[in-house]
Amino acid sequence: MNATEANLAREEPGEVGLVEPVDFHQSEPFEFASGASIPEFTLRYETYGRLNADKSNVILIAHALTGDHHCAGVHSFKDRKPGWWNNMIGPGKPIDTNRFFVLCANCIGGCQGSTGPTSNNPATGKPYSLTFPFVTIRDMVRSQKLLLDSLEIPFLYAVIGGSMGGMQVLQWAIEYPDYVRRILPMATTWRQNSQAIAFDEVGRQAIMQDPEWKNGDYDPAAGPNVGLAIARMMAHITYLSDKGMDRKFGRRRQAGKDSAYSFDVEFEVESYLRYQGESFTNRFDANTYLYFTRALGYFDLAETHGNLDAAVSKMSCRALVVGFTSDWLFPPEQNREIALAMLRQGKEASYLQIDIDLGHDSFLIDSPELFQLTRDFLSK
Amino acid sequence: MNATEANLAREEPGEVGLVEPVDFHQSEPFEFASGASIPEFTLRYETYGRLNADKSNVILIAHALTGDHHCAGVHSFKDRKPGWWNNMIGPGKPIDTNRFFVLCANCIGGCQGSTGPTSNNPATGKPYSLTFPFVTIRDMVRSQKLLLDSLEIPFLYAVIGGSMGGMQVLQWAIEYPDYVRRILPMATTWRQNSQAIAFDEVGRQAIMQDPEWKNGDYDPAAGPNVGLAIARMMAHITYLSDKGMDRKFGRRRQAGKDSAYSFDVEFEVESYLRYQGESFTNRFDANTYLYFTRALGYFDLAETHGNLDAAVSKMSCRALVVGFTSDWLFPPEQNREIALAMLRQGKEASYLQIDIDLGHDSFLIDSPELFQLTRDFLSK
Repeated sequence: MNATEANLAREEPGEVGLVEPVDFHQSEPFEFASGASIPEFTLRYETYGRLNADKSNVILIAHALTGDHHCAGVHSFKDRKPGWWNNMIGPGKPIDTNRFFVLCANCIGGCQGSTGPTSNNPATGKPYSLTFPFVTIRDMVRSQKLLLDSLEIPFLYAVIGGSMGGMQVLQWAIEYPDYVRRILPMATTWRQNSQAIAFDEVGRQAIMQDPEWKNGDYDPAAGPNVGLAIARMMAHITYLSDKGMDRKFGRRRQAGKDSAYSFDVEFEVESYLRYQGESFTNRFDANTYLYFTRALGYFDLAETHGNLDAAVSKMSCRALVVGFTSDWLFPPEQNREIALAMLRQGKEASYLQIDIDLGHDSFLIDSPELFQLTRDFLSK
Repeated sequence: MNATEANLAREEPGEVGLVEPVDFHQSEPFEFASGASIPEFTLRYETYGRLNADKSNVILIAHALTGDHHCAGVHSFKDRKPGWWNNMIGPGKPIDTNRFFVLCANCIGGCQGSTGPTSNNPATGKPYSLTFPFVTIRDMVRSQKLLLDSLEIPFLYAVIGGSMGGMQVLQWAIEYPDYVRRILPMATTWRQNSQAIAFDEVGRQAIMQDPEWKNGDYDPAAGPNVGLAIARMMAHITYLSDKGMDRKFGRRRQAGKDSAYSFDVEFEVESYLRYQGESFTNRFDANTYLYFTRALGYFDLAETHGNLDAAVSKMSCRALVVGFTSDWLFPPEQNREIALAMLRQGKEASYLQIDIDLGHDSFLIDSPELFQLTRDFLSK
């Protein structure tokens, strides 16, 4: 960016402004939980705010299934939209970049710059596709730790994330207890229930049964976009709530489409979903969708550690767990159970339930209550 | 059937036994609510029990989206499964065929013998496919009335059905108030909410985006089975409940499939859903799925009659409306609203909510409470 743009960025009050992603590259092998490994890997990440002298102000953000490292600011002043958590992160915002150095990395296995199925395998010069190792939440966390080590970050002031990001938050606190001071998992779960596993399976089948999937070896220019869009449309419903959808769309007909009796778009909600499906295929890779949904399904703190109490007993951070009343994908009870288990194990934990009718995606919206909770928790 | 089989059928206590479907054919045109018409039509139906002398013991069953006319008994003693409501209908059962003459017809637009998109258009000698008129709940009811008129049934003792069947039940009571004495709608709604419309749209898109759909003109032997199976898998989740799925499948792994790290079936629930999807394509037509889900979406008693109260004010039957606590597709509130509106309009109506954790499909399972309610309501 030029000097004028840089000044504009600084002068915009309360906004992160222009940011540029950075690549961390490790040229040594990375071994996954499955035992498989890749010879090298890259994590693309962004940072907001300034690292202080003793590097004690680092907050790590963990992204959800279809999120990425770009959670605040813009890449260009022509950008239509800022990063996905721009309402939460910035100077004077709940995750205050005047105070904290905030970092977010695209997960390993991802498709937004970090090494994943679309990356070239150095051994073959061709994309990994389905030869990419299976990814777990633990692999995501362990690869991020290597990035933080490369920056010589001594510890994390906090780890924050919702949904799949919340799973990473929990895993961070278990995997590196001495490294993590505070966790703020939201709209998450310590293991998916049967229904969530089922929805993910339908999404995967929509992709894998698309003739363009070609057993994962598709041309990126002509991938299984139909299947991916169907998976996204369905999943998107599970991120909302019936009440939220009734309020936002109800049974309203598409403007200028009064005529009934067609299979074209008639209801507004149909138009919205089709748009969600189509636009998703422009920014997301189908194989990454397969890998990440498997990572969601495999995550089970009880299975891995014997039971939930045994899992959280390894933590030594304080925790604020936030659930949303209308979240039926990772229901509030599943969030509450995490805090209760921590309390049983003598940990410092709170559970707060926020009554917003926007379903699972509630953690992404402007919520004064969530903003205040986050601010307070980080000030302690 | 031969004499021995006939005797077996009669001697099997409490079972309808062998039944044979019958075709009602009208050789005059049928006009749909859309204004379009077809030159003739057939409704395939079944009956159980005996019509009494004054024809005063007729109960009409209305089937759901993927149901059909075969709701009790078997077509052959080799049948693996009896009709879809065999637990409810039979001698001595809640809908007692010792007392009632029970009739159920495959809906117009259907694919199990009644005229629908797979039927040949007499004018062209080829299947109607997408030239079949759009079907509404009212069309289903009006075509069934023609069948009942042909049998010279003077009135209906009761109309009973769940889900899309429940919509037909409501429509019956509004369309033909003097003809209907009792209605028992279950797990239904007087209009779908935004979320239900959205799920149906994803199902339709899965079908219509399948390259084998060919704008509806597919060879029945090679239709859009992939899309239809995806639609069914997704819809099937909406017929269950999170608690029910946790109880039935939980996170259990498929037997003999301990190895993780694959995109094959790993969790039992995945195997169950894949089976549901695949087997559905053997018995159901993709175009009918499109038509019937549109019928569901179009049904809106408030839109058609001004408001719900105005709609139910036309009824002159008594009603028992049954909702199920765990039904999140057509939630109990939406059922309750029907009974409340009837009461406001001075009608004889009750609402009963049954606490079964099997979701929308609860109306199909063995429930002593539902059985007793049905029996009592029909004895009055």
